[in-house]
Amino acid sequence: MNIQDTIVALASPAGAGAIAVIRVSGPEALAICSPIFKSVSGKVLANQKTHTIHLGHIMDGQRTIDEVLVSLFKGTNSYTGEPTVEISCHGSSYIQQEIIQLLLRSGCRTAKAGEFTLRSFINGKMDLSQAEAVADLIASDNEAAHQIAMQQMRGGFSNEIAQLRQELLNFASLIELELDFSEEDVEFADRTQFKDLVARITKVLKRLIDSFATGNVIKNGIPVAIVGEPNVGKSTLLNALLNEERAIVSDIAGTTRDTIEDELSIGGIGFRFIDTAGIRETQDVIEGLGIKKTFEKIKQAQVVVLLHTASEVIHQTDSVKLEIEKIKNQFPLKPLLVVANKIDALSPKELNEIETKIDNLHLLSAKENKGIDALKEKLLDFVNTGALRNDETIVTNSRHYDALLKALEEIEKVQYGLDTGLSGDLMAIDIREALYHFGEITGQVTNDELLGNIFANFCIGK
Amino acid sequence: MNIQDTIVALASPAGAGAIAVIRVSGPEALAICSPIFKSVSGKVLANQKTHTIHLGHIMDGQRTIDEVLVSLFKGTNSYTGEPTVEISCHGSSYIQQEIIQLLLRSGCRTAKAGEFTLRSFINGKMDLSQAEAVADLIASDNEAAHQIAMQQMRGGFSNEIAQLRQELLNFASLIELELDFSEEDVEFADRTQFKDLVARITKVLKRLIDSFATGNVIKNGIPVAIVGEPNVGKSTLLNALLNEERAIVSDIAGTTRDTIEDELSIGGIGFRFIDTAGIRETQDVIEGLGIKKTFEKIKQAQVVVLLHTASEVIHQTDSVKLEIEKIKNQFPLKPLLVVANKIDALSPKELNEIETKIDNLHLLSAKENKGIDALKEKLLDFVNTGALRNDETIVTNSRHYDALLKALEEIEKVQYGLDTGLSGDLMAIDIREALYHFGEITGQVTNDELLGNIFANFCIGK
Repeated sequence: MNIQDTIVALASPAGAGAIAVIRVSGPEALAICSPIFKSVSGKVLANQKTHTIHLGHIMDGQRTIDEVLVSLFKGTNSYTGEPTVEISCHGSSYIQQEIIQLLLRSGCRTAKAGEFTLRSFINGKMDLSQAEAVADLIASDNEAAHQIAMQQMRGGFSNEIAQLRQELLNFASLIELELDFSEEDVEFADRTQFKDLVARITKVLKRLIDSFATGNVIKNGIPVAIVGEPNVGKSTLLNALLNEERAIVSDIAGTTRDTIEDELSIGGIGFRFIDTAGIRETQDVIEGLGIKKTFEKIKQAQVVVLLHTASEVIHQTDSVKLEIEKIKNQFPLKPLLVVANKIDALSPKELNEIETKIDNLHLLSAKENKGIDALKEKLLDFVNTGALRNDETIVTNSRHYDALLKALEEIEKVQYGLDTGLSGDLMAIDIREALYHFGEITGQVTNDELLGNIFANFCIGK
Repeated sequence: MNIQDTIVALASPAGAGAIAVIRVSGPEALAICSPIFKSVSGKVLANQKTHTIHLGHIMDGQRTIDEVLVSLFKGTNSYTGEPTVEISCHGSSYIQQEIIQLLLRSGCRTAKAGEFTLRSFINGKMDLSQAEAVADLIASDNEAAHQIAMQQMRGGFSNEIAQLRQELLNFASLIELELDFSEEDVEFADRTQFKDLVARITKVLKRLIDSFATGNVIKNGIPVAIVGEPNVGKSTLLNALLNEERAIVSDIAGTTRDTIEDELSIGGIGFRFIDTAGIRETQDVIEGLGIKKTFEKIKQAQVVVLLHTASEVIHQTDSVKLEIEKIKNQFPLKPLLVVANKIDALSPKELNEIETKIDNLHLLSAKENKGIDALKEKLLDFVNTGALRNDETIVTNSRHYDALLKALEEIEKVQYGLDTGLSGDLMAIDIREALYHFGEITGQVTNDELLGNIFANFCIGK
């Protein structure tokens, strides 16, 4: 990890657009960019103030590559904490390449994935959990994931950990001091205060660990299995759920969401809809395999939507009940929503009696867009959004989760030590272990392999 | 064309990346952006200097959408010539949408394609041919197209036209002045000087009109028909030509050129390779249709490459000669390159005698990468790159070409009038017509429909 190099990468998305941004960072950023930039007003780039913008041309000798705007960040006043130059050029791929190649010839090297953010961490501009939040933020595609990443990037999570770590560190020092005076039998560390701290730490750790379940589904989306035969209107339902969302994003010209497919955001939470083949009773061996597959998919899902036509519910009530029983037997704890679609095809009399057939039946007409909003609300009810609404810290990163679990384990040992009057020297070991795991989260404890793993997940240019 | 509106668009390419740039331009740019931006140091955006950069958060009420850098361009000191704010945010599509939606709610409207550049033209920051060059620059994908667009954007072309137009305008005024004094038979406009000017204008117009042939192929790429039977190694040849280029671009991580297919840049000039079915003599009706199609494709091409295996050239020399004759008969002026591929399969004896079989035969082994560079050089020789090398102005835009043709027509009428002693009042009409067509190029003469057509070809955000 050589931070003496000056690195360059395209920071805006690849491909042609109106403009592109090329980022140069490192000790030689100004020295490299100054000679290839000819200001329209004759200014020398290196003499300009930080946080200023300059119009001019990128010159390869006598050849003009492009008219550009150059943004200067001097000293440590930049994202990376080192001198940075951002070149905003015309968005032709050819021009992007020409400028980057010129910079490479002038002494830059190509930045690795996440290297700008890695430097930001190394130069103390952010801690490790904040750096990780940058990648989460860029990957966020719904409100909840965005909110959690933003909170983490602004330090909500690591501030809490860092403060508890500091308090614990103070006690560790006092307890270790006692060891130096062990023959005098003094207690520098007030045991009552220490018990109080350990209790507080335990509470915070448990809350954060619990939040991971919520955080995980928010970050990765909530898998919903839709169980139903081919003719019950699964795709009409999905389209009805999707279309409303699409109407919202289509306000903005030029935004495309090709990857949406059967993933959509409801109330700011991402849901992933898993299509299944249904579980209707059959003698057919092939179809029997289909049922087995459906059960596997239900197993992966957090919520199950069992979809029938309203007509089936009325005329084949027992068969529908049997399917409900089968799912409940296999997955007694999994939330199940039983939905009757195509209620538009019922007679008024049938519409009156349908709700008496099955308990908690959700009525729907995907075609006429009836019951769609109510279905979305029911889906949302399955997610514990309480923490999210209260702006509480939510853990989404499995690395943090692991470190928190290990820290809790050590803290529980400390608690046990306090309860049983364990000697200070033994307790000090457990405290140091807990401190180590706290440090893993914020990056006070780290190593090259860990950093390599974390930043390899970033995009190039960030 | 309401330039009282404040407009917003994504300026960087669509899709996720490290960062994205959102551009806001118009009289209310600062008034709209200032309230939604919370500077980390508590600064008020509207009070900051032009060409400065500020770190802070985009706030939707109490909710933080993103940590961003904001660039300020105040007064007329911007690309558009009106107050502009550029927001550099994290590259998540979700964040881009949220910020753009917030700006739309705050009083911006979505920018139309090319509207930023249109405003730049309307506000007098560039003339029309320079504005058109911006789109060409963004679309440029090889060195020659880039060089021409850059030259045009920097005013090389329109400066020349504008200066001639000014001189012509001066004479028009003098000649029209004579009309006011027509009973006194004076000549304010020196006819010798005027003849000299008309001769100069004619020369420039003819040079520019001639340059369009070169400009057009450079801008659109040079079509090369490859004529050959399926087994002669067409795709190996194309790959050999392509691979070298790919090796050059692959220096830069993250650059992809999926669309390269059978288009490639040789010596900075774009070539488009058109695959054909060959023209071998046949009795088969279907294959006969294939030959007809091949001839149609040859017609569209600027250069023809007739490809055979070296073995065919030696053992079926007459058949090869017949094909050459057929092409030369149909297209006597079209450059033809006869190529013998797979020379690696020849015996030393055959290799010695092959060049005696056909005149100007180009020997090639696509497989062993022999003769590839020489082939590239021969292809380049077909392009008149003289003007390009000498940094002369080259016309690439068919709208300019049309206007130049019309201007030349009028100037030739003026010339005829001068030669035949036409009366001043009649000559003045022709001069005014010529001036009109000059003005069309630079945009001194324009209308909404023309502007609409031109800027509709731009991307959104530029």
